[in-house]
Amino acid sequence: MKRVFFVLLLCVTMLLPLGAAHDPAEPLYGFTTATSGPERDWENKFRAIPDTKILRDTMQRLSAHPHHVGSPYDKQNAEWILAQFKSWGLNAEIETFDVLFPTPKERVLELLEPARYTAKLQEPAVPQDPTSNQQSEQLPTYNAYSIDGDVTAPLVYVNYGLPKDYEALERLGVSVKGAIVIARYGNSWRGIKPKVAAEHGAIGCIIYSDPKDDGYFEDDVFPEGPMRNENGVQRGSVLDMPTYPGDPLTPGVGAKGNVKRLTVKEAATITKIPVLPISYGDARPLLAALKGRIGPPEFRGALDIPYHVGPGPAKVHLKLQFNWDIKPVYDVIVKIQGSESPDQWVVRGNHHDGWVNGAEDPISGQIALLEEARGLAQLLKQGWKPKRTIIYCAWDGEEPMLLGSTEWAEYHAEELRQHGAIYINTDGNGRGFLEVEGSHSLEKFVNGVARDTTDPEKNIPVWKRRQAEVLLRGKPEDRKEAHSRADLRIGALGSGSDYTAFIDHIGIASLNVGYGGEDQGGIYHSIYDDFYWYTHFSDTDFVYGRALAQTIGVMVMRFADSDVLPYDFTDFADTIHKYSDELKTMLKDRQEEIRDRNQALDDGMFNAISDPRRPIVPPAKEAVPPFINFAPLDNAEAALKASADRYARAVQKFGRGNPSSAQALQNLNAQLMQAERRLTNQDGLPRRPWYKHLIYAPGFYTGYDAKTLPGIREGIEEKRYQEAENEITRVAKALQDYAAVIDSAATELERLP
Amino acid sequence: MKRVFFVLLLCVTMLLPLGAAHDPAEPLYGFTTATSGPERDWENKFRAIPDTKILRDTMQRLSAHPHHVGSPYDKQNAEWILAQFKSWGLNAEIETFDVLFPTPKERVLELLEPARYTAKLQEPAVPQDPTSNQQSEQLPTYNAYSIDGDVTAPLVYVNYGLPKDYEALERLGVSVKGAIVIARYGNSWRGIKPKVAAEHGAIGCIIYSDPKDDGYFEDDVFPEGPMRNENGVQRGSVLDMPTYPGDPLTPGVGAKGNVKRLTVKEAATITKIPVLPISYGDARPLLAALKGRIGPPEFRGALDIPYHVGPGPAKVHLKLQFNWDIKPVYDVIVKIQGSESPDQWVVRGNHHDGWVNGAEDPISGQIALLEEARGLAQLLKQGWKPKRTIIYCAWDGEEPMLLGSTEWAEYHAEELRQHGAIYINTDGNGRGFLEVEGSHSLEKFVNGVARDTTDPEKNIPVWKRRQAEVLLRGKPEDRKEAHSRADLRIGALGSGSDYTAFIDHIGIASLNVGYGGEDQGGIYHSIYDDFYWYTHFSDTDFVYGRALAQTIGVMVMRFADSDVLPYDFTDFADTIHKYSDELKTMLKDRQEEIRDRNQALDDGMFNAISDPRRPIVPPAKEAVPPFINFAPLDNAEAALKASADRYARAVQKFGRGNPSSAQALQNLNAQLMQAERRLTNQDGLPRRPWYKHLIYAPGFYTGYDAKTLPGIREGIEEKRYQEAENEITRVAKALQDYAAVIDSAATELERLP
Repeated sequence: MKRVFFVLLLCVTMLLPLGAAHDPAEPLYGFTTATSGPERDWENKFRAIPDTKILRDTMQRLSAHPHHVGSPYDKQNAEWILAQFKSWGLNAEIETFDVLFPTPKERVLELLEPARYTAKLQEPAVPQDPTSNQQSEQLPTYNAYSIDGDVTAPLVYVNYGLPKDYEALERLGVSVKGAIVIARYGNSWRGIKPKVAAEHGAIGCIIYSDPKDDGYFEDDVFPEGPMRNENGVQRGSVLDMPTYPGDPLTPGVGAKGNVKRLTVKEAATITKIPVLPISYGDARPLLAALKGRIGPPEFRGALDIPYHVGPGPAKVHLKLQFNWDIKPVYDVIVKIQGSESPDQWVVRGNHHDGWVNGAEDPISGQIALLEEARGLAQLLKQGWKPKRTIIYCAWDGEEPMLLGSTEWAEYHAEELRQHGAIYINTDGNGRGFLEVEGSHSLEKFVNGVARDTTDPEKNIPVWKRRQAEVLLRGKPEDRKEAHSRADLRIGALGSGSDYTAFIDHIGIASLNVGYGGEDQGGIYHSIYDDFYWYTHFSDTDFVYGRALAQTIGVMVMRFADSDVLPYDFTDFADTIHKYSDELKTMLKDRQEEIRDRNQALDDGMFNAISDPRRPIVPPAKEAVPPFINFAPLDNAEAALKASADRYARAVQKFGRGNPSSAQALQNLNAQLMQAERRLTNQDGLPRRPWYKHLIYAPGFYTGYDAKTLPGIREGIEEKRYQEAENEITRVAKALQDYAAVIDSAATELERLP
Repeated sequence: MKRVFFVLLLCVTMLLPLGAAHDPAEPLYGFTTATSGPERDWENKFRAIPDTKILRDTMQRLSAHPHHVGSPYDKQNAEWILAQFKSWGLNAEIETFDVLFPTPKERVLELLEPARYTAKLQEPAVPQDPTSNQQSEQLPTYNAYSIDGDVTAPLVYVNYGLPKDYEALERLGVSVKGAIVIARYGNSWRGIKPKVAAEHGAIGCIIYSDPKDDGYFEDDVFPEGPMRNENGVQRGSVLDMPTYPGDPLTPGVGAKGNVKRLTVKEAATITKIPVLPISYGDARPLLAALKGRIGPPEFRGALDIPYHVGPGPAKVHLKLQFNWDIKPVYDVIVKIQGSESPDQWVVRGNHHDGWVNGAEDPISGQIALLEEARGLAQLLKQGWKPKRTIIYCAWDGEEPMLLGSTEWAEYHAEELRQHGAIYINTDGNGRGFLEVEGSHSLEKFVNGVARDTTDPEKNIPVWKRRQAEVLLRGKPEDRKEAHSRADLRIGALGSGSDYTAFIDHIGIASLNVGYGGEDQGGIYHSIYDDFYWYTHFSDTDFVYGRALAQTIGVMVMRFADSDVLPYDFTDFADTIHKYSDELKTMLKDRQEEIRDRNQALDDGMFNAISDPRRPIVPPAKEAVPPFINFAPLDNAEAALKASADRYARAVQKFGRGNPSSAQALQNLNAQLMQAERRLTNQDGLPRRPWYKHLIYAPGFYTGYDAKTLPGIREGIEEKRYQEAENEITRVAKALQDYAAVIDSAATELERLP
């Protein structure tokens, strides 16, 4: 589904002036001086292979027809990808799962009062765009996993439909109880919007794309420009991803064969109210018919109307019925056996299914994956022998809810827990800056590869482009940090793509990687995300497709070839410290804020500023948050820092020493590979046991965005202070265990001759 | 012209819980315990007089027809106001000046390419609004003091048309040389826009009202709502107010009789390029025809189009010709002779001319002024004897360029320098919070009156409503200050209304006062600013009209009746210290910013982040600002603080002591009255000698907004560092002189028995 990338919080060093090359005399991280040389030679050979012509042709092939789950072309693509892998001499197979995938039977949206309007719910073909007219093959515009429903009610505009939007509405005295809400896309995983609406008593939910967010406010609209036109609709899943992803009928187990399935009614992740996505062409008559209070400034989009919130007089009828079918998803899996440590797995994936033609999402990432595989296959023929096993995965069914990857990871969970060393994900690609999110034990590794990868537009390391960006566009605190930190920061993983099961459910150190930031688009999940759009408005000459293949290919090789698995724990320790500080500050800020607000309530301040013509409903008084015990976390941080520093010294000494045999390093690497697993807990997070990682999770009310130290953070945010304190104990225990693994690994390293 | 009020930076004390009454046992500031009682009685009598029915009727009378300079109804209004004053037994007369006032002869605006569009330049009548159809009496939509011109050129969109907007355009590689620019209204005095455009080489300027700023982005449009509809146009002057206001042909002298006049060509304040204001209905086809780069986010308004900046392909023809006539302006002046100190003048004004019917601007303020005068006249009949002379002024010709007030002040400059104790201005009124800007020696006085004035909607002191606002909506630093400061802060005076000549040219301590903040409007300077609009969307029951009359009436009385003129210098000293800190921080920030930017330029950072498809033009390298000598200012601040504290102790002792005779206080008050004049310098500000106040001035590139310590501040902002250092010396000298006056006054006070 390709979440929209965020500009990462980055930090930089000033020690390396821009443009200075990475010192080739330095050993690669996880290698010795002696083993770095051959590795660099293989990497250089690899980088020469990805070909922009092939990238282009492959995109055209894979995006030539709609290829959603259950469509003929989805299956054809899987088979074509399989054939490609095999033609390069790789060991590949298709693994099939059977999952719930609803498609529309009936869709009706009408404005009944004060005037009548029937929503078109259609994306018309565009003459110059040759694949936009494949209407018989296209999925209609809908939100997958909306329940069936037939509701009529007054309309309320709820901005992005997030908890704070409902707070703003409460200040205006507006309730959505019994109403149909209309929310705009953006600022969260779309499934959050119907979830929060239902929590507040709404009986139906419409989601539209406001031109402020990906329409004419940003640039010209398609086909003149890249942005969403008045007919473009964002399809997409509304399953409750933060509860669990994957097939809603088989949580925690692979949906294969005669596995026990829940009924649709039993599935906790299906929406509670009917949901439908629409274009801004269809939304405008509805929004223009609203009266009542004007939304606060942050509610206002770019339509040429005042954004009243209602309720009414607009009255809306929404009727939705779906075919609740079980459909196959076809994962294409390649395995390259490791020569020395076949039990250590480097897993790399990108999905191949789209909502329609899906040129950007996901094919722009899939073509890089295929070029990597073609390149690695060539190297194998030239004698390259990766130490570890490499697994390439072209996932199916990502769009509905990470189905192919989640079911595969659940089905192979035990093997993955034993063998998973890293999972590297992509999900589409664009033009511009390297954008990475991932486990912070991989931050140094990512920085190393970024220093060794050349930006195709600037012919400087992609690392340096990123550094320039944070220095010129970063927040003041990030620029400042620039003077003291060696590595650029990577973001934390939330959810919205296929890494989710690997990091959050299994506990494998993971990355999500892409290029972007130079182009904007408004074709996401519409029929206009196709080859025509991509070759007019994005990485038109595919040089960033090549750069992505080079970046990830080198990551895979370096991880598979390293003497010592290239985790680093100092950046991780630093990041945990940062998160912990954030939590303490958040608690303190909330205490102050609530104390001040209670005082203002006692003093009648809200009444004093309230305009009688536009009254403010004062917030309720609430208890000031208690102080909670952060000491276990502080102690764990201290232990972590000591172990990480010790390990860093040992690994540096290793790099400058003599090479060791694979056998001598076997136990060390086996321990290192298990480190990330120590950050998981088999009970999972409070109320969502599928999510087992205690450091990273998608927020319960964000979906895409990560909540770090989620049990603690969401405990504080959602006013469950006792739970937050309990979570501190669990996190501290995990970090202590993790530190113990690092210590043990350091002991192994120090023991080497 | 009624500048749009800003929410003031306010600071509050927490010592007085909300709703607590001001202690009536405390003497009024400037009074003794004994004299406070009778003053309070007279003020209470006064407060009972202003009448909402009369306020309403008077508005309806004065706004019944267009009443711009030179119109029949402008003269009739002046005569009617004169008759009112006289009917109350007041000594009134009309004083006439003859000023340059151009009106349109020809107005043409056409889009020639890529399609043709001829701008309507018309505001149609609205059926339910009875005065909107007086077309034969209405001035056409135009900007007064635009030069004649006939230009054809490509169009460039320049956002608000301020210097930083042109910097943003430079980063995009866009020049306006030889182009016609289109700027949106807002964020500055409108005359800044053609001035800056001409400085950058543009040959014509169009100004339009974007719906983001006062149209549908904020609320429903007129007549359904209060905001500007697609046809509404903001007329207004574009004279270069920050150089000098008043008649452009007679700078510094009153335009009466055979005074020597410049030719139009010689007048420095008339625009260098032709300028025309238009509606967003007329602007949309022009803006939609632009291509080229998309403006950065801050350039984007609320029209339903991408905001391209051009240049072109839109090509525009602008032709303007004006009748350059001399017209009379009629100031109506009332004089109430003081009983004890007739040589000390309390001057109070609001203009009576409008751009069209002008119900809000200026009549909503004029009606309060008239009710004050009626009330004071009643008190006089009841035996009230103000110690000082009170002068009420209904100004004409404010809209074109503060003509009536400026010419009057220039004509009476010598008397005003001798006698002016305070000037109190209003310029329209609305509903909500008390908003005050002024000389900070009056800050404590304003706080005192605000504590004694009741808000009509909440029945609490207006001071407390304001306090609540800063506590709930203020910036963090303002809320924080709330715990340590006794008085709410008032803003500094920039320009845009009739106080300008009094504070900036003569050096009389001045105030600008109004209520507002609860209603929004988009009828400013259009035909829709009329009785219908005001009585549907603003202070519909005129209770804030009454509150304004009560507020200002009490200010006038308290200033005219006080034993010791109620200036306070501790708030002034505190404010100067704040300004001085701002300047030091600004210089330091600029040094750092330019140093960092130069480094980034040296390191090629701008090239590194530049998108080849949308290149960034790097800024030029520039010299890091030098350190400058703030020591004279620091020393002056120290002297000022010591004197202010000493005076505060003396005046507090005075308040609790026995009353003194007027004679005993004569010398003291004569000195106090001259204090503000010490803050002026007869050479004026650099390059604008008319502006003589060294502490407050309208910014050369802001117009409405004040620049405090303007010589120093603008020196730093505009990179004239030597000049800034020289200005420090001049300001320091003025502050030392000012401190000496305070010291001398303190000596007088201490000497009293």
